[in-house]
Amino acid sequence: MAGVRNILFIMADQLRADYLSCAGHQTLQTPHIDGLAKRGVLFDRAYCQAPVCGPSRMSFYTGRYMTSHGATYNGVPLRATELTMGDYLRPLGYRVGLVGKTHMKSDDDGMKRLGVDPKSSLGVLISECGFEPFERDDGLHPDQLLDPDLAYNAWLRAKGYASENPWHDYANAGEGPGGEILSGWYMRNSNLPARIREEDSETPYMTDRAMDFIRASGDQTWCLHLSYIKPHWPYIAPAPYHNMYGPGQMQSVRQSDAEHRNPHPVVAAFMQHEESVNFSRADVRDIVIPTYMGLVKQLDDHLGRLFAFLEQSGRMKDTLIVLTSDHGDYLGDHWLGEKELFHEESVRIPMIVYHPDDAADATRGKVDHAFVEAIDLAPTFLDVAGGVPQPHRLEGASLLPRLFGQATPLWREAAFSECDYAFRPARHILGLPPDRARAYMVRTDRWKYIAYEGFRPQLFDLQDDPHEYADLGESPAHAGLREELAARLFTWMRQRRIRTTLSDADVEKRTGTAKARGILFGVW
Amino acid sequence: MAGVRNILFIMADQLRADYLSCAGHQTLQTPHIDGLAKRGVLFDRAYCQAPVCGPSRMSFYTGRYMTSHGATYNGVPLRATELTMGDYLRPLGYRVGLVGKTHMKSDDDGMKRLGVDPKSSLGVLISECGFEPFERDDGLHPDQLLDPDLAYNAWLRAKGYASENPWHDYANAGEGPGGEILSGWYMRNSNLPARIREEDSETPYMTDRAMDFIRASGDQTWCLHLSYIKPHWPYIAPAPYHNMYGPGQMQSVRQSDAEHRNPHPVVAAFMQHEESVNFSRADVRDIVIPTYMGLVKQLDDHLGRLFAFLEQSGRMKDTLIVLTSDHGDYLGDHWLGEKELFHEESVRIPMIVYHPDDAADATRGKVDHAFVEAIDLAPTFLDVAGGVPQPHRLEGASLLPRLFGQATPLWREAAFSECDYAFRPARHILGLPPDRARAYMVRTDRWKYIAYEGFRPQLFDLQDDPHEYADLGESPAHAGLREELAARLFTWMRQRRIRTTLSDADVEKRTGTAKARGILFGVW
Repeated sequence: MAGVRNILFIMADQLRADYLSCAGHQTLQTPHIDGLAKRGVLFDRAYCQAPVCGPSRMSFYTGRYMTSHGATYNGVPLRATELTMGDYLRPLGYRVGLVGKTHMKSDDDGMKRLGVDPKSSLGVLISECGFEPFERDDGLHPDQLLDPDLAYNAWLRAKGYASENPWHDYANAGEGPGGEILSGWYMRNSNLPARIREEDSETPYMTDRAMDFIRASGDQTWCLHLSYIKPHWPYIAPAPYHNMYGPGQMQSVRQSDAEHRNPHPVVAAFMQHEESVNFSRADVRDIVIPTYMGLVKQLDDHLGRLFAFLEQSGRMKDTLIVLTSDHGDYLGDHWLGEKELFHEESVRIPMIVYHPDDAADATRGKVDHAFVEAIDLAPTFLDVAGGVPQPHRLEGASLLPRLFGQATPLWREAAFSECDYAFRPARHILGLPPDRARAYMVRTDRWKYIAYEGFRPQLFDLQDDPHEYADLGESPAHAGLREELAARLFTWMRQRRIRTTLSDADVEKRTGTAKARGILFGVW
Repeated sequence: MAGVRNILFIMADQLRADYLSCAGHQTLQTPHIDGLAKRGVLFDRAYCQAPVCGPSRMSFYTGRYMTSHGATYNGVPLRATELTMGDYLRPLGYRVGLVGKTHMKSDDDGMKRLGVDPKSSLGVLISECGFEPFERDDGLHPDQLLDPDLAYNAWLRAKGYASENPWHDYANAGEGPGGEILSGWYMRNSNLPARIREEDSETPYMTDRAMDFIRASGDQTWCLHLSYIKPHWPYIAPAPYHNMYGPGQMQSVRQSDAEHRNPHPVVAAFMQHEESVNFSRADVRDIVIPTYMGLVKQLDDHLGRLFAFLEQSGRMKDTLIVLTSDHGDYLGDHWLGEKELFHEESVRIPMIVYHPDDAADATRGKVDHAFVEAIDLAPTFLDVAGGVPQPHRLEGASLLPRLFGQATPLWREAAFSECDYAFRPARHILGLPPDRARAYMVRTDRWKYIAYEGFRPQLFDLQDDPHEYADLGESPAHAGLREELAARLFTWMRQRRIRTTLSDADVEKRTGTAKARGILFGVW
């Protein structure tokens, strides 16, 4: 056994599970990611717990479903009492650092009430979701929300990119024929090269910062969350990635007339969103998707650089490496843009796990079809670190037995995901109050069932209809099946871990002991 | 309008809803409580959110269902970020005090992690569930768990009750013929007079302490939680209450052969508990129930004294008064002792609310059959105090519109309650792990449906079978109805308020504003 010590938890943002050559993409070659998959395990049925950044990430970091951690959307603070990876790993001797994005919104009211100074080291940890913010950068910096102290901008300016907001004006903008800045926010500009040297763009910068962290950690055991913003929008890439691909290399769009003609009411509302309207146009996709592919390609190249660094520094032998994403991207499939709903393009995520120990040799290069969830990473890391399992809070399962090829008879038979679309125009279109815009997915081997608050459910047969074109949510022949899947969702909800302040072992220790403690009720 | 300012929130412990003469008890006269009902409203379909002290009280104090606050049993800490009545009322100028019991277990791990000193005034408030502990006394003090600083014991000792634990040796014990101490813990001693002068026993003591608090508060607006331990066990009363009633005054026991012969598996496990075995014996009930009645009578007498004090001090004109209980007591009905399950005897609670303002004149003396829940009190008090409603956290509804006779078209059509019996021997009897011992009740106008994790449901027809003798949980004729009620429970679970860190108003303010904030996704 080589002995795993460190944990490298790499996340891309909005990276679709099928946009990797190891996952079947025919024209987008990702040899470095493929190489990691060859040395590790590719989980091809991995799901995020909420197909949108904030709540998905809070599930990754807390190891808990959205309904349990409560931070249901971007910008919803994670309550100060929710524990995260950092809380679990730091006491076990880990330095737990962040390079990149978390989308964490701090629970300022909670901290204020509890007297926690947000500037104290405790306050910073709670505000940063348990990570030491070696380089926190959520990757979206429009002028309106600009942090004047953004490190990446300062670095760009030092390199000569003169602007108040070089993140926008150089890294995420192209240039018109007259030298005018053409913002990458507008998808019509997505095929332009970003006005930045490739090596100064975000993906290489964050890769370098990750190496800085690893170097700076020396002999200290670490867990690094390296969290890239790309291929998330603004969809714009530096040369040569901006035109490495063209419409001819794109996967066929997945759209059926039926789903457009007679959509589920909630899906119909999402189809009215600007991103859905625009991504439904072939000319938009032809401009944007090649750039999306280029951004993935760029990511792969820099991961190659990172993996070479790990190899050279000896870290490949003692580091568990995970590559995943917080959710996918519709890219026009199903007449939708962005994410949030539960089609595979949105809710399924890439998940590759490499474990250097000999014990994992049995599974190297394998594809594991088990249902894996984002919440499995926190318990996996705790397992790697040798910590005591915490099933009263952590709702996922360690992946180590799977990596070691051990029998796991009790592995889950379904994956679950959730959505709170209260903040989206769809809610207004549907006339719903803020607390009634929720939806839930359960996906079994063959079926996907989606429950919507206040609307009929959706049902898809993934065996006969893998692209989810035929919604069986009103099919009379499937009524019994829908009931069964609704019952499964209900069971899942009932089994959430809500008793988080007392361990199961403590419950077991106390069960039936009242009388031993002198509480003699019911005794004659 | 006289102008309500103060709030007196009186709770008895384990007081059954039907053990009051205003609620139909034929032999137990409670004229003072009846008098409050005559001046206020008696809600005769009020339910606790969990029929056991700790989680029920946490629901009262937080205004949230058990599944939302997570403190699922006695001794399970309430996480430090859960807000309570005190958090809502204190900023509005209220002194929020406690006299008596809360069953709060402080979240010591949470406070430690957040750097809150439990001895600081902040730490004390968080530890005491948001109440200023004017006199905290949870009312159960066996020698094994004795707090050497218990104020009531010090007071008793000062009055000459010589003992290390006069709570037990005098207030909760009788005396044998040779002067030997016969503990009130043993139900065989329940018919003995407690070895204490009546005026020194717990109920008058706490009543006096409440008056002390009110007097000490002077012109300061206050909310006082006066929380009596009795008629909770130890079932022993001082003279003359120990023999004021006899078996001839008892209500008939509610037992059917069918429920004993063929019980639901979970109920069967509870029937094996010592308290159920003993309370199923007529000789035990004949000894214990008259004393239980005596304890209620004593409570009523002291409430009379308290109400007279309020009248004389002018407080009756400016104080909202609530009288309720945390749950009921089986007292042998359904072959069960104690509480925890969902028969009416256990889950239904007394609920009387008196509002002094003229606006409430329209409803004085009325019985309101609407479904009221324990979680309604926190929003009621917030409403009284003129605070902003907080529906993103508070899951109940203010009772003020009902008290004022206003139309409330959207009032709930069902009541819900929950149970986590992980700590009880029943779980071991059933061979369940600590996270699978949960049950849920929904009660509609006619039906009561109970979902058990891992077992068949129960169903009762409260119209044709008001005493819940006939379990229709397996009746083929009721399959559709059971499905409907299960769906209702599922809907209820999905609608829990989990997004507690952001108000609905803030959600509304933010909905659809991403682009206005510069986040230009999906724009061509």
